[in-house]
Amino acid sequence: MSNKGVKESYKKSAERMRGDNKTLGSQLTPEDFNDPNINQKAFESKQVNYDNIEKSPNMEEVHKWQREHIKKDDQSKDGYPLNVILDPAMREMYQVVHNSDMTNVFDRFSQQQPIQCKFCVEGLSCQLCANGPCRITPKVPRGVCGVDAHTMVARNFMYRHVTIGTAANIFHAHQAARTLKAAGQHPESGLKIRDPEKLRKFADMAGLDANKPIDTLAVEFADWVMNDIHSPYHIPSKTVEAFAPTKRKELWKRLGLFPGGGYSEVSYAQTSCMTNFRSDPVEFLLNSVRLGVANEYQGLFMLDILQEILMGTQEIQKKKQNMGLLKENMVNIVTNGHMPLVAHVALDLASTDEWQQKAKDAGANGIQILGHVCEGQQMINYSGTHNQVAYGGQEGEWLSEEYLLATGAVDLFMFDYNCTVPTLPLYADKFGTKLVSTHPVIKLQGTETLDFVPERMKEQAEKLLNMAIEGFKERKASGREVYIPPHTSDCMVGFSTESVKKALGGSFKPLIDQIANGNIRGIATIVGCTTARYGQGGSNIFKIAKGLIENNILVLSGGCTSAVMEYTGLTDPKAADEAGEGLKAVCKQLGIPPVLTYGACVDIGKMTQTAKEIADALDVDTNKLPLVIGAPEYLEQKAVADACTAVALGWLVHVAPVPSITGSDVVVKTLTETTEKLGLGKVVVEMDAEKTIEIYKDHIEKKRKELGLN
Amino acid sequence: MSNKGVKESYKKSAERMRGDNKTLGSQLTPEDFNDPNINQKAFESKQVNYDNIEKSPNMEEVHKWQREHIKKDDQSKDGYPLNVILDPAMREMYQVVHNSDMTNVFDRFSQQQPIQCKFCVEGLSCQLCANGPCRITPKVPRGVCGVDAHTMVARNFMYRHVTIGTAANIFHAHQAARTLKAAGQHPESGLKIRDPEKLRKFADMAGLDANKPIDTLAVEFADWVMNDIHSPYHIPSKTVEAFAPTKRKELWKRLGLFPGGGYSEVSYAQTSCMTNFRSDPVEFLLNSVRLGVANEYQGLFMLDILQEILMGTQEIQKKKQNMGLLKENMVNIVTNGHMPLVAHVALDLASTDEWQQKAKDAGANGIQILGHVCEGQQMINYSGTHNQVAYGGQEGEWLSEEYLLATGAVDLFMFDYNCTVPTLPLYADKFGTKLVSTHPVIKLQGTETLDFVPERMKEQAEKLLNMAIEGFKERKASGREVYIPPHTSDCMVGFSTESVKKALGGSFKPLIDQIANGNIRGIATIVGCTTARYGQGGSNIFKIAKGLIENNILVLSGGCTSAVMEYTGLTDPKAADEAGEGLKAVCKQLGIPPVLTYGACVDIGKMTQTAKEIADALDVDTNKLPLVIGAPEYLEQKAVADACTAVALGWLVHVAPVPSITGSDVVVKTLTETTEKLGLGKVVVEMDAEKTIEIYKDHIEKKRKELGLN
Repeated sequence: MSNKGVKESYKKSAERMRGDNKTLGSQLTPEDFNDPNINQKAFESKQVNYDNIEKSPNMEEVHKWQREHIKKDDQSKDGYPLNVILDPAMREMYQVVHNSDMTNVFDRFSQQQPIQCKFCVEGLSCQLCANGPCRITPKVPRGVCGVDAHTMVARNFMYRHVTIGTAANIFHAHQAARTLKAAGQHPESGLKIRDPEKLRKFADMAGLDANKPIDTLAVEFADWVMNDIHSPYHIPSKTVEAFAPTKRKELWKRLGLFPGGGYSEVSYAQTSCMTNFRSDPVEFLLNSVRLGVANEYQGLFMLDILQEILMGTQEIQKKKQNMGLLKENMVNIVTNGHMPLVAHVALDLASTDEWQQKAKDAGANGIQILGHVCEGQQMINYSGTHNQVAYGGQEGEWLSEEYLLATGAVDLFMFDYNCTVPTLPLYADKFGTKLVSTHPVIKLQGTETLDFVPERMKEQAEKLLNMAIEGFKERKASGREVYIPPHTSDCMVGFSTESVKKALGGSFKPLIDQIANGNIRGIATIVGCTTARYGQGGSNIFKIAKGLIENNILVLSGGCTSAVMEYTGLTDPKAADEAGEGLKAVCKQLGIPPVLTYGACVDIGKMTQTAKEIADALDVDTNKLPLVIGAPEYLEQKAVADACTAVALGWLVHVAPVPSITGSDVVVKTLTETTEKLGLGKVVVEMDAEKTIEIYKDHIEKKRKELGLN
Repeated sequence: MSNKGVKESYKKSAERMRGDNKTLGSQLTPEDFNDPNINQKAFESKQVNYDNIEKSPNMEEVHKWQREHIKKDDQSKDGYPLNVILDPAMREMYQVVHNSDMTNVFDRFSQQQPIQCKFCVEGLSCQLCANGPCRITPKVPRGVCGVDAHTMVARNFMYRHVTIGTAANIFHAHQAARTLKAAGQHPESGLKIRDPEKLRKFADMAGLDANKPIDTLAVEFADWVMNDIHSPYHIPSKTVEAFAPTKRKELWKRLGLFPGGGYSEVSYAQTSCMTNFRSDPVEFLLNSVRLGVANEYQGLFMLDILQEILMGTQEIQKKKQNMGLLKENMVNIVTNGHMPLVAHVALDLASTDEWQQKAKDAGANGIQILGHVCEGQQMINYSGTHNQVAYGGQEGEWLSEEYLLATGAVDLFMFDYNCTVPTLPLYADKFGTKLVSTHPVIKLQGTETLDFVPERMKEQAEKLLNMAIEGFKERKASGREVYIPPHTSDCMVGFSTESVKKALGGSFKPLIDQIANGNIRGIATIVGCTTARYGQGGSNIFKIAKGLIENNILVLSGGCTSAVMEYTGLTDPKAADEAGEGLKAVCKQLGIPPVLTYGACVDIGKMTQTAKEIADALDVDTNKLPLVIGAPEYLEQKAVADACTAVALGWLVHVAPVPSITGSDVVVKTLTETTEKLGLGKVVVEMDAEKTIEIYKDHIEKKRKELGLN
């Protein structure tokens, strides 16, 4: 396709948004999917046609198109999903997949709409016991057990979302601690302690003797973390005591929100969700905030520290992102999830001459490891991963997973955590990708799973690399066609508490001065997922982020939002030109973009640390900062737990889409008003990007005023 | 109402079953409940009319009626709920409540039927993430994320039921361990170690030095239990190692089902339920069985030991059950839930002359504490509770809670766990009952909650008794009308591993001989809840139990099923006459009934111990026993976790009503067939009582044959 043709294709997409072109992906109706076997049939054929797709123009034009695109009303059903997909690589690959009748996330979203349940949407449906399922209506105001709308909604909120998310983040920290312990005890594991100073600093804060040999200290700190995670709920958490802001701790103690050990807390909360058990809606919500505290200090914050000790703290660098980083003649490994534990050992190994030679012996130009979703955002940021020879870059957000495999260029897709979509075995089979889980906690249908054995990670990494090389050989032997969308974005990555402070000359004072003088009005963290929901799919994130920087609000990103910031060019220092005058000047002076990617969704733990250090420097409580937390396209349970963390820390948390709590005015009011009166933060739900920007601005200006800033 | 009138009323109920009388409670349609304020209005008026109800005849006639009743087809909607309520006290009180337009469990069940969701019934509805809610249909075979019917159903099964139930049982054991520790450390708590020999025996099995002073040993054993509960999931559980059958442990290790610490296991399982995480249905089911192992040894079995050490092991005695035990001129305390920890201290205190005198000073004849649901089943069984002066008896099953409060005779209703229905605050307010939670894990709307502080239980018990006396005074001062249905059943209670063995002369050999010679064909445990569902409400339990004893199958009961056995007379030694010839002879010889109540649903932990000891005596694995586990009216999450325990132990588990797994043939087949092939047990779902009895008989005969018995 000529460049002209490409531009034409983008023009068509823009037209499609206005509903005047309905050829592709538009007007999907459930009837299009009426054959239950359609997807299965699509996967039986090993052929796929890469020719008949509208290719995207070069990145400069893509970025221009993205900016024009979001100025229009793109939140209608017309033209879905191409009216919401901003990622040029995903736009192309969606067409490949859709045209081949393969099940994929955007098409499935369309299929589900006509059968979506309004009771479930509002949280007014309960499936807990055998007297149910029950639904609540104005005329039938209680479930069989007697539960009312408020308790049902609040309980659903906690047990479906908060306990799962909290468990998952703490579980992640737990696995990272096991890995650090192995690094201290088993040098043959291939694990290294790359940031010993960080280990000493936090071990000292934990009350350990930081002067011990580093290997010993690694073991002691790891044990200290694991012991706290596994403490009873009624023993105050040592990690919270050691690392949370003093004023917050006092408030949490006063409100009964100071947690004990996280796993015990999760089980306490689960227990209370039983049928005919707790029936006080406010209690469920406060318990959720308490879980939010554990979620942070035994989860997010802790796993960040542990992974940085192992993989090296973030370092600011220029890197590249997107599917164009796949190379047809390389052994391509994509590692997916959130815990690059065995993955970073594999990266170490793959970076040796020995393994590059093995790849060459198999006929490849070499071997590279690319990261997908948050695992990719972590590896692109850590000094110990992004500097490795075999490091290949970041691939994309969770929505693009099926489309990524459809390139046919991925020889091994390894994964260790969410977000790993259930259809990958179908794609792997069709496109010849080897699929392997590196933790038994995540098993996919008919897919190989490795045990989680930190002590043997080097051995496991070798196995993984051999599998990938085998995959490459099979790909070449089969003569399978490959199509790699040629797009990559330039981005500046590696922001974190330490790297930002270092860039500022060793203290947050210069940043605080810029906030005080009003060049930067405040900070917004735009974190979390992307969704397939209408009007979202990255575009809500992009719109809001762009609006905020134009208003001199510095944006930090983490999670799939970082991928959006990357493929829209907002993490390129050039984007400083798109910021308001004050922020632009600061960015230009420092040579940084107006959106700083902190990495993964789990790197929220670092953002809270940055905020804590700024609050400490100002000698104020965290809830006094001109700061807003946003999850404009949140998807899953960890995001909900993280929102509870933010409420615990006293922050305004914007979420979209609408969470399933609207069935209870008590629940809505508690989360959007009452919590703030208690000194906690609060939740704001807003779907419209323009209104969202105003909410952030107003909150930041209110907080500035309270701090006496103009 | 004359006795003749009473008989007439029972006759009418029988007619109602056949649909030829539709005056009362029959033909409820949703339109009857169309006013959302109807229930609220009913609670605003403080008056209720006790006159216009059809009173039940004496117990002998009630028992006769119950037996006639279940011979008829009572599973239709006609006449509901009086066609399913067997309990004479509940029959009367239902009418009081229903005629006063007060919200109550049976009427709510009717209201929910027309709006019940068929997707939820089959497990084909997912509300986990913000791309949903999703439903699966033949034409739309995957959720937005790509999840298929099998993964959706299996995941729903685990996260909605098994993790909650497992957490709850382990949490219970955890609280009991804290209490035992306080008993060892704080004599001022009022706590006693009533069964020091049991403590020494199990402490020895745990590998502790059982010769230490008993107070020290209590602390050490409690710590040992709590440490195991709080261990990481990857450290094999010490309680499972110490107490599970050897052959089972080998199997569980081989299958990866040997758990670590329970809370860590729950969080592991919850983590895997995240969106885009585990998507292997079989893995969810095996994980559920693994949770079932933890549920038993860190939950049920352990909490039974701990509570018996504190409250005295069960002792076989004749006692009474039902609402007739309330006394108008007594201070009536009802304690509800599953953890009579502070409750048994209150019972100790109330049994002193000092507190009886205080009640008399307030104008009462005395003060009594009655137990409701499983708490009542425990207190009626423990030697340290049922022998106390102030002990008042067992009140009923969970369905009768609202009806119990409607008597107006309950001065204090204290509760510590499930099953405590959410509408109690409405009833308490209308009927002047003081309502208090004794554990923060269960808070009800606008209701006082005590902290859980074992060290201060005596002080808390004093507070509770004072509240009750105050409640009595207020009742008398208000001149409030009271109506106590005059029904009580005679029953023989207090069965357990030890008391049965003692009754048999010190060993299970006499029982084994009776099984071997065929007088007793086998054993069925009929455990768990009662449900408001059509055709159940106690009647399914009663029908099945009666059919089994007629076929010479000895029945053990635990949970609300025990209440059914009690109010139908099956736990009266007289019921031996209803058994088949072989069982009858054994019962007559020993002077026991054909249904042995082991007490509460959580006393399943004792049944498994009895089974283990019988299996040990026979030197066979537990799955070789002629034994069936039934939960013919299961309701909630602990029951599901308990079913997983039974599957782990290799037993056939019958459940009704149909669990929400029918949306996946893979899930159904795995639980009903595959698990048995692995050496585990399996689940059977059967709604029809006659067919259920045949299934039990066939299974027992098959197991007899395998053992070489005729």
